[in-house]
Amino acid sequence: MKIIIAGAGAMGSRFGLMLHQAKNDVILVDGWQEHIDNIKRDGLKANFNGEEVAENIAIYHQDEVSNVDFSADLVILFTKAMQLDGMLKSIKNMIGENTKVLCLLNGIGHEDVIKKYVPLSSILLGNTMWTAGLEGPGRAKLFGNGSIDLQNLGTDGKSAAEEIITVLNEAKLNAKYSDNILSSIYKKACVNGTMNGLCTILDSNMADFGETNVADNIVESIVSEFAAVAKRENATLNVDEVLAQIKTCYNRETIGLHHPSMYQDLMINNRLTEIDFINGAIVRKGKEYGISTPYCSFLTELVHAKEQILGAK
Amino acid sequence: MKIIIAGAGAMGSRFGLMLHQAKNDVILVDGWQEHIDNIKRDGLKANFNGEEVAENIAIYHQDEVSNVDFSADLVILFTKAMQLDGMLKSIKNMIGENTKVLCLLNGIGHEDVIKKYVPLSSILLGNTMWTAGLEGPGRAKLFGNGSIDLQNLGTDGKSAAEEIITVLNEAKLNAKYSDNILSSIYKKACVNGTMNGLCTILDSNMADFGETNVADNIVESIVSEFAAVAKRENATLNVDEVLAQIKTCYNRETIGLHHPSMYQDLMINNRLTEIDFINGAIVRKGKEYGISTPYCSFLTELVHAKEQILGAK
Repeated sequence: MKIIIAGAGAMGSRFGLMLHQAKNDVILVDGWQEHIDNIKRDGLKANFNGEEVAENIAIYHQDEVSNVDFSADLVILFTKAMQLDGMLKSIKNMIGENTKVLCLLNGIGHEDVIKKYVPLSSILLGNTMWTAGLEGPGRAKLFGNGSIDLQNLGTDGKSAAEEIITVLNEAKLNAKYSDNILSSIYKKACVNGTMNGLCTILDSNMADFGETNVADNIVESIVSEFAAVAKRENATLNVDEVLAQIKTCYNRETIGLHHPSMYQDLMINNRLTEIDFINGAIVRKGKEYGISTPYCSFLTELVHAKEQILGAK
Repeated sequence: MKIIIAGAGAMGSRFGLMLHQAKNDVILVDGWQEHIDNIKRDGLKANFNGEEVAENIAIYHQDEVSNVDFSADLVILFTKAMQLDGMLKSIKNMIGENTKVLCLLNGIGHEDVIKKYVPLSSILLGNTMWTAGLEGPGRAKLFGNGSIDLQNLGTDGKSAAEEIITVLNEAKLNAKYSDNILSSIYKKACVNGTMNGLCTILDSNMADFGETNVADNIVESIVSEFAAVAKRENATLNVDEVLAQIKTCYNRETIGLHHPSMYQDLMINNRLTEIDFINGAIVRKGKEYGISTPYCSFLTELVHAKEQILGAK
């Protein structure tokens, strides 16, 4: 299958590598020049479950990809949320009538961007439990196991997704069809919509925040706003289950001492955050549906204030 | 007049010094041992508009004051908000039927604490534009001019305040009666209720915050909650005027590069903040009146989270 990995960061590298190993015709598209140069020269290197590998995969800068002759059967989207629209614009000549687009970005509401480029029937919305890291330009660190749930947003449902699921599973990516992908996406977004913004604004790890006597109140207020919006979209969210999952982030023995990805982006790497596609998406949808979302609104504003105060780019 | 200055920090030192210079019988009560020791040994020292002064004023630790034989005509309250109740408990033997209590603390709702000790007719609620600083234990820095507005909370109104106003004016403290003290208090609280908590949480000076593109939204949301509660208490708040005053805090040429007092308390000195008596008071009153105050609520919770994460005392 002819596959574009649109956004070849840590997760894109994992998917590109595994799909290439399974004999698909894969090209990577990214915007980080040093990363691209290294992969062109040495192949995509990775520590893949302890084994050193280097896969010779084609990679293009998104600014030079528009004239590449490649008719994609599948595009897998792995950009940062705010780069999604620009990426789709860059690769749109390679997207045809039969191209499926699988979106695995974190956050909510990306289909509103994607449907400007392909019909809903071509969009597969997914949620993945795979993890991945980059050790440097051109070099990934890929450990552990994962899975993908995905759903077709068109009326054809499962039948429009079966071929893609087969290809993903031949690459051992553990994909399965879901009839309720929005629920998984909202559930994951609740964890990101609390830990990410709060630990960033409070300059805190997850355990230190979780052990304050106001953590429960704050988290419940935010999650209840996500739940109200999710309900309006017929995505059921089990609030107690979500709250219990968030509390596992506070455990010092496991992940509690870590800082979430948004903290890394802004506080360590001085980059703009994805807050507009997590809490900010709840605010936009809340306005559309007439649902009050003050906690998400204030948190989104505070993170934007912090970005500007720090001069993030 | 026999006057207790309850809380002899920067502002208490100014008032104590000026009232003592005007030949009143003043005692200071405080909780900072080194400050007390220095004043006992050397008098209260100050750079007073450029002139070095040292006034020999009696000072007591609030833990040792309960047996002091002093029948106060006037108590001026200048503690931190969270220390108010403890201070009143310490000095209650010196408060009699005719003692007036003038409250000049920042924040909202202190009369709810004070009325546990004296009737409303003895309470004078005030707002002051005087400033003061401490250069170290026992040593104040007192520059510029100021004024006091005050109102009697009982039914006697102005007549119950006249003697006190005369004494304050003999000490050149520029006091005058107000029929609308709550409005001034709410106005000041709006400035504190935005700049203090926001600059603390964002680790920012006032200009850097004010220049972000979310500052207006955040500030307007918070001020509208203050205004709704103020209205319920018949304190008129001119929202446009308040917003304009807040914007003067962003001016880099004047005070914009400063950090507000709450930032100093928590981020520099690792002390607990007065947030419960500013935004937190709006939340409490909002609950009582059935007014929704999510921005004040979230900001109060965030500041408490930050206190706990930093281990403030």
